Amino acid sequence: MEHLHQSFTIKYEYNVFFSSGLFAPTNSLLNDFLASAPAQDNRKIFFVVDAGVAEAQPQLIEHIKAYFKLQNPVQLIDDILIVPGGEGVKNDTKYFEQVLEAVNQHGIDRHSYIAAIGGGSVLDMVGYAATVAHRGIKHIRIPTTVLSQNDSGIGVKNGINYFNKKNFLGTFAPPVAVFNDETFLNTLSDRDWRSGISEAIKVALIKDREFFEWLEYSATDLVQRDLPVMNHLIWRCAKLHLEHIAGADPFESGSSRPLDFGHWSAHKLEYLTNFEVRHGEAVAMGIALDTVYSNLSGRLSSAESQRVTDLLQQLGFEITHPLLQVDGEDSPVLAGLQEFREHLGGQLTIMLLNAIGEGEEVHEIDTVLLKQAGKVLHDLQFWVQHK
Amino acid sequence: MEHLHQSFTIKYEYNVFFSSGLFAPTNSLLNDFLASAPAQDNRKIFFVVDAGVAEAQPQLIEHIKAYFKLQNPVQLIDDILIVPGGEGVKNDTKYFEQVLEAVNQHGIDRHSYIAAIGGGSVLDMVGYAATVAHRGIKHIRIPTTVLSQNDSGIGVKNGINYFNKKNFLGTFAPPVAVFNDETFLNTLSDRDWRSGISEAIKVALIKDREFFEWLEYSATDLVQRDLPVMNHLIWRCAKLHLEHIAGADPFESGSSRPLDFGHWSAHKLEYLTNFEVRHGEAVAMGIALDTVYSNLSGRLSSAESQRVTDLLQQLGFEITHPLLQVDGEDSPVLAGLQEFREHLGGQLTIMLLNAIGEGEEVHEIDTVLLKQAGKVLHDLQFWVQHK
Repeated sequence: MEHLHQSFTIKYEYNVFFSSGLFAPTNSLLNDFLASAPAQDNRKIFFVVDAGVAEAQPQLIEHIKAYFKLQNPVQLIDDILIVPGGEGVKNDTKYFEQVLEAVNQHGIDRHSYIAAIGGGSVLDMVGYAATVAHRGIKHIRIPTTVLSQNDSGIGVKNGINYFNKKNFLGTFAPPVAVFNDETFLNTLSDRDWRSGISEAIKVALIKDREFFEWLEYSATDLVQRDLPVMNHLIWRCAKLHLEHIAGADPFESGSSRPLDFGHWSAHKLEYLTNFEVRHGEAVAMGIALDTVYSNLSGRLSSAESQRVTDLLQQLGFEITHPLLQVDGEDSPVLAGLQEFREHLGGQLTIMLLNAIGEGEEVHEIDTVLLKQAGKVLHDLQFWVQHK
Repeated sequence: MEHLHQSFTIKYEYNVFFSSGLFAPTNSLLNDFLASAPAQDNRKIFFVVDAGVAEAQPQLIEHIKAYFKLQNPVQLIDDILIVPGGEGVKNDTKYFEQVLEAVNQHGIDRHSYIAAIGGGSVLDMVGYAATVAHRGIKHIRIPTTVLSQNDSGIGVKNGINYFNKKNFLGTFAPPVAVFNDETFLNTLSDRDWRSGISEAIKVALIKDREFFEWLEYSATDLVQRDLPVMNHLIWRCAKLHLEHIAGADPFESGSSRPLDFGHWSAHKLEYLTNFEVRHGEAVAMGIALDTVYSNLSGRLSSAESQRVTDLLQQLGFEITHPLLQVDGEDSPVLAGLQEFREHLGGQLTIMLLNAIGEGEEVHEIDTVLLKQAGKVLHDLQFWVQHK
């Protein structure tokens, strides 16, 4: 049959910059980046800031305004939008709408910028709004948490939750730049400081044994909030994530998502606890579950499995949760498996471990072993909590 | 300053198939396409059909169901969604929501398909919903009008209107396939049959003089609804559009949109008339306006300018509208210029003609000449209507 064939390629490129005090008057990094784009009339920049960050750094808004008074390759929209941090900002579409309203009201066009400062949820929501308004306004990510600086904030995914499903709406669309500013990390609570480490453990477990060993070696420093050590963790973890995205299937046309090791149960747990368990904490539990499952199903040695749970516990993570226990066929955690498959599409594909640093994808999960794994973790956790 | 660099390319490919009777039991084209994708569990196909098409072809829904009973490489979701045709389906987000609800309810995943059958508006809306649900479900376009078969339905743009602005929300995301079925064209009203021809005139004027001459030669056959002649028009126009998209800037990162010759005023007119003037009709008037403006501003010869308005009138198009007249600084058509700039971003960039088949982009429009152009067209139209 007759047909016309269409074919083209699109090149995507961006930098993840590391800096300290991005809005300090003497820091020209952001200014240089904005000035380097081809000159266009009417270029504007609109900031959306995580309320948690604005509260922890009360002078941030002032500093942004002062920065753009000194250096102004683009026009700052003075009306900076503050939105709540955390999953709530993805659950209620009103925040997404607020970004769209600003785009409309301020005439923000495709050559202008929307910059999001905050944790992963704020970046996800703002990125989604930016990539659908006018079919895509340039977005800049300024992640402020360990989790977003080493993982979610540096990648290509944007999204909000809908129908109570995580990232039901979203896009694959890279930012034009990411700025990781270490000064934000100092204001994090211990809980948020710790949370993001689980993504580093995850990527080390499936890709980089040496990095895992470095994490074991650095655990005490991380607990003691050593900033240079954390910066090294973020750099290395971000690098592994970026390489993975570029190397395989950036916009995930397949069914596999190897970087989601430990995530299928984590996503479900976040929902079940109404996001009281944070993403990084849920991922730590999900990693523990899939690690022990890897051991019980004959893939991973008991010694290595224990190194993983030891590291998690040494860092202060809880390694399981009552809602991750399989009590029967209708245990909610089992529904998480099905939802994970549905979101990715195609065949169920779960990453497990053959060794530390070596993942393997499987397409079936044995409920009996999963139940056992939950029990093993429950006992381990009980023992640590009561020792 | 330290940074990590990310870079990757994505290849986009799809075919525009030409067929007759796509859902006839003996037509294996769609089946072959669906069967050619890598096997995956749970692949489904969900159809959204333009109410106007369902009405003009009352057996269409039955034929689709019968087709998938015979040939079923993927599972048909029996619950076929009917939505109104025309711009209304892009103006009210409830139709977009209906598609999302179906995705959720029927567990349509990223390896499944959403197929839209209808005019350009339905395809735009369904494409937008498909490309943001689960960050992108494969979408198939089955355009049923001349306009959508030769232009909007075969490209990479999806969108809905928001804040009363055309395509305020949308994505650049190609379909996995387009099926142009000529049998739909026979059920079109004369008005819709004609409407789509304006996009062919547009692309001929800026890119292909020979095609313009063929259109002049074929005008009588087109008025008499000769299907093979129309099919040739669609093929050639679609080919020019596809080549343009692949050759330049598929996702429009620049400010220029050469294929939007005649469109800046057309978009505005559609809104001002609450879409009573259809897109193709508005484009015909927009082409006339920018052609006469090209002549008055010293670019295009008077003889060629007249050939354009003659062809439009011979095909039965009106060549202007009272709302396209510039009466003063606050004439609504002038606001259209600003909105066009804003949607594309950056500098105002308008395509004009140096000759038939040769466009040239300019960055300023002279209000006095625009007023004169409107008047010239008004007089020409008056003369034809009263001769």
